[in-house]
Amino acid sequence: MTSPSQLQELINRRLQELNFSGDPASLYEPIRYMMALGGKRIRPVLVLMGTELFNGDLNQALSAATGIEVFHNFTLLHDDIMDNAPLRRAQPTVHAKWNSNIAILSGDAMFVKACQLMIEVPDHAVRKVMEVFNRTALEVCEGQQMDMDFETESSVSIDRYLEMIKLKTAVLVGCSLEVGAIIAGADAKAAQHLYDFGVNLGIAFQLQDDILDVYGDAAKFGKQVGGDILANKKTLLLLFALEQAQGESKAELLKWIGTTVDENNAAEKVTAVTNLYQQLQVREYAEARMQSSYEEAIAHLEAIPVPSESKSALRELAESLMVREA
Amino acid sequence: MTSPSQLQELINRRLQELNFSGDPASLYEPIRYMMALGGKRIRPVLVLMGTELFNGDLNQALSAATGIEVFHNFTLLHDDIMDNAPLRRAQPTVHAKWNSNIAILSGDAMFVKACQLMIEVPDHAVRKVMEVFNRTALEVCEGQQMDMDFETESSVSIDRYLEMIKLKTAVLVGCSLEVGAIIAGADAKAAQHLYDFGVNLGIAFQLQDDILDVYGDAAKFGKQVGGDILANKKTLLLLFALEQAQGESKAELLKWIGTTVDENNAAEKVTAVTNLYQQLQVREYAEARMQSSYEEAIAHLEAIPVPSESKSALRELAESLMVREA
Repeated sequence: MTSPSQLQELINRRLQELNFSGDPASLYEPIRYMMALGGKRIRPVLVLMGTELFNGDLNQALSAATGIEVFHNFTLLHDDIMDNAPLRRAQPTVHAKWNSNIAILSGDAMFVKACQLMIEVPDHAVRKVMEVFNRTALEVCEGQQMDMDFETESSVSIDRYLEMIKLKTAVLVGCSLEVGAIIAGADAKAAQHLYDFGVNLGIAFQLQDDILDVYGDAAKFGKQVGGDILANKKTLLLLFALEQAQGESKAELLKWIGTTVDENNAAEKVTAVTNLYQQLQVREYAEARMQSSYEEAIAHLEAIPVPSESKSALRELAESLMVREA
Repeated sequence: MTSPSQLQELINRRLQELNFSGDPASLYEPIRYMMALGGKRIRPVLVLMGTELFNGDLNQALSAATGIEVFHNFTLLHDDIMDNAPLRRAQPTVHAKWNSNIAILSGDAMFVKACQLMIEVPDHAVRKVMEVFNRTALEVCEGQQMDMDFETESSVSIDRYLEMIKLKTAVLVGCSLEVGAIIAGADAKAAQHLYDFGVNLGIAFQLQDDILDVYGDAAKFGKQVGGDILANKKTLLLLFALEQAQGESKAELLKWIGTTVDENNAAEKVTAVTNLYQQLQVREYAEARMQSSYEEAIAHLEAIPVPSESKSALRELAESLMVREA
């Protein structure tokens, strides 16, 4: 069994070999820049882990693994334009460093590059890999659109929110693992369990993100605590609070949502909303919801018909993802 | 042999079946809108003609044919954002009707839809079709980037201009035909000749566009005559004129390029530049260049080892594309 850090090393070496250079330089330079911003390369590592789980050949999975990473970075590049984000990993975003047109087109070219890498798989896997990849890519677009729609929608249901995070981020986790399994020749049912493990793990991870934004240790989490509250971001916590709150609590919550904050009252808003969350047992609900997705993920992992010890790497990875704060 | 208009009908029927609906509606409505703007569906017709040329089954090529059309419309959608174009086929562009973010994301989703359609081909063709399609899609991005770069580059060589129009528009014509040939099981050499026929025909067509903009019959051409001259667009004609002009002619050409035009001097500019073109024999050069691409196209068509009468539909189509003005 290859360790996750060794797998990450394989991915980074292949990404370096790929280089992403070409003519005109104005198209390819932003692609190289984006790919060089780094990251944990978690999705391509999952592809390779999916292949190893079924005793597949890592060399046969390496191109598709990097394809998934290129695709992921393409979505980040286009999302950054749409979110008007100035920074990505503490560096200027592509549209900020160059311009929106270059960011649109370089992103398009990255998507094509991803497709090129995705078909570099054994013959038996080409169609299946492209089917899973295309379906997932479309779902990621749907999730991003839902996320944008939510910003202006007055009421968003919890179900719809869960659907959004599933599509926007979790399905790509599942897809990564399943692509690895397909390359290794896993049967459809086993590959489906691995996919469901990934999707549920992705949902749990995303819900933990919502929880940590309010209850995390700022130093360890690496973000401003309460950032979602200040931005009125429709997270699982806020949506549940809006659903539960009655009378005075509801009025106070709505008042704070309608209050423009500056440096003078930002801390006050975070404290007030967090107090309301406590009254409404928001944290308990969110943690239970996260735990249930996590357990569903583990159940799917356990259902895969391979020796239990083969799954230990994925089990450990899942656990490590869920104890980011502790 | 199925007539081009019957093939077009097949394409339009399949496009209607596809419908492009989905959730969230905000993602799919712009896709339906874009696809409903119409067009001659020339590229998908070429896919089907490529399949018929080698006695293939049209039903096996219909999905990939529509995939090429969806891809083409995706590139138009994103190009319209980059060009800040208000209209497409006399209707508001997607980014004008909705907004840029929706246009970016709907475009991305269209690209995925195109990929989904491109793999709906017989097993023997999946990898080959995706290889040709991906390579072409990347080239189209490169061509669009070159075109954008040219706007701010002070000097553009004729070779570089020809490379740009090849990448931006001609390779997709070749790709369409080759995809059809691959689906029909044509051998690699024959498919390559068909591709080269398409690429050269595409270049000839694009050069004719440059020529018609200056020398076309406005009523028949459907555009303002001299539009490229007024916009200082770097066409084959202007680039050749800039290369050829000396002394006074050069000074006058540069003066007109540097002159901001309004309704008072627009006609004067078109006349003056057209006169310079006449002195420099620009039209003769452009027509010779176009003719040489056209003849190269026909030579590749004739080199395909199928009965001559099987090629008559493609021969007629090529001829009809080259006599738009007459």
